[in-house]
Amino acid sequence: MKHPPALARLIAALNALPGVGPKTAQRLAFRLLQEQRAAARELSGALDKALEAVGRCGRCRMLAEGPLCTLCALPARDDSQLCVVESPADVIAVENSGSFRGRYFVLMGHLSPLDGIGPEQLGLPDLLHQLEAGAVREVILATNSTVEGEATAHFIGDLVRARGIRISRIAHGVPFGGELEYVDGGTLAHALQGRKDLD
Amino acid sequence: MKHPPALARLIAALNALPGVGPKTAQRLAFRLLQEQRAAARELSGALDKALEAVGRCGRCRMLAEGPLCTLCALPARDDSQLCVVESPADVIAVENSGSFRGRYFVLMGHLSPLDGIGPEQLGLPDLLHQLEAGAVREVILATNSTVEGEATAHFIGDLVRARGIRISRIAHGVPFGGELEYVDGGTLAHALQGRKDLD
Repeated sequence: MKHPPALARLIAALNALPGVGPKTAQRLAFRLLQEQRAAARELSGALDKALEAVGRCGRCRMLAEGPLCTLCALPARDDSQLCVVESPADVIAVENSGSFRGRYFVLMGHLSPLDGIGPEQLGLPDLLHQLEAGAVREVILATNSTVEGEATAHFIGDLVRARGIRISRIAHGVPFGGELEYVDGGTLAHALQGRKDLD
Repeated sequence: MKHPPALARLIAALNALPGVGPKTAQRLAFRLLQEQRAAARELSGALDKALEAVGRCGRCRMLAEGPLCTLCALPARDDSQLCVVESPADVIAVENSGSFRGRYFVLMGHLSPLDGIGPEQLGLPDLLHQLEAGAVREVILATNSTVEGEATAHFIGDLVRARGIRISRIAHGVPFGGELEYVDGGTLAHALQGRKDLD
């Protein structure tokens, strides 16, 4: 059966969201137009406002309202450490761990030449520019532990090392509280390779 | 870490969607404001348009653009059979089965006195009004097989029977292709109770 055009358009727009299939999109559209019309109106308003107000931080490329993001605007952070991550969600994850007090640089992706994403698209010229300012003593590479993330880390590592700045990669191994029996082989290989002497 | 206000508002609005938790809402918001700004703009426009254009069908209460829904506007349906369902999604499901050529009546919910949903809210006065017009020879109750759906079916059944119109309930039993071993006890009890003589 064919939906009326405005409903079909809404279903298609919801279906375009990541992780929302056609069936979920239809269910969401029905709910939004039946019981949740106020929620629908609020979502539309919030989208418009966010599209208008939220851009990128001029320093770390994080999503920001205004020229600097919440973190870059804080004076009380350690300017000597710069943590490089792939996405805004990674910044939130590291912040929530409560174990880092430095600054961030958000690549908004990883190197992917086939998709036309090279050093320019990841803002690496900006990154090098910031390193030249001299405050950063260590760059911590916290890109994902995927093939693309590793390649990106390797590429940035070379650039940073050439400038005589300390470069490090976050550790990979058995998750905290993880049982060896349920850890995959790749992780275990990393954990063995990255073993540390007990003293 | 605190999100900027426009971003926090968008995350809250997405979180209000059925089935979208706080983590998914954050992921959706980041994606919509990073790679998918065009999709975000389209979603906002589609919501506005649908809220403005989509209302209820004056005859069956289905979601409709204009006074009548797509199905009620079709002349080539059987006016003598009326299928009563709880939601627009149920209409789609029955239509997709290809086994019904009559008309629908959409309750947009089920009886739920604690939530203030009584016969009025389900449009039952409208339904009775339609039955009085005389074209309907059979009302098929296709509300859900839940406690509320059964109670609603029972209630409507009494109203319809009092008017001397044939009333039926869709069959409940083992799903087509279902294996007894994996069917729950309630379904099996229904299937046994609703058994038919072979001839």
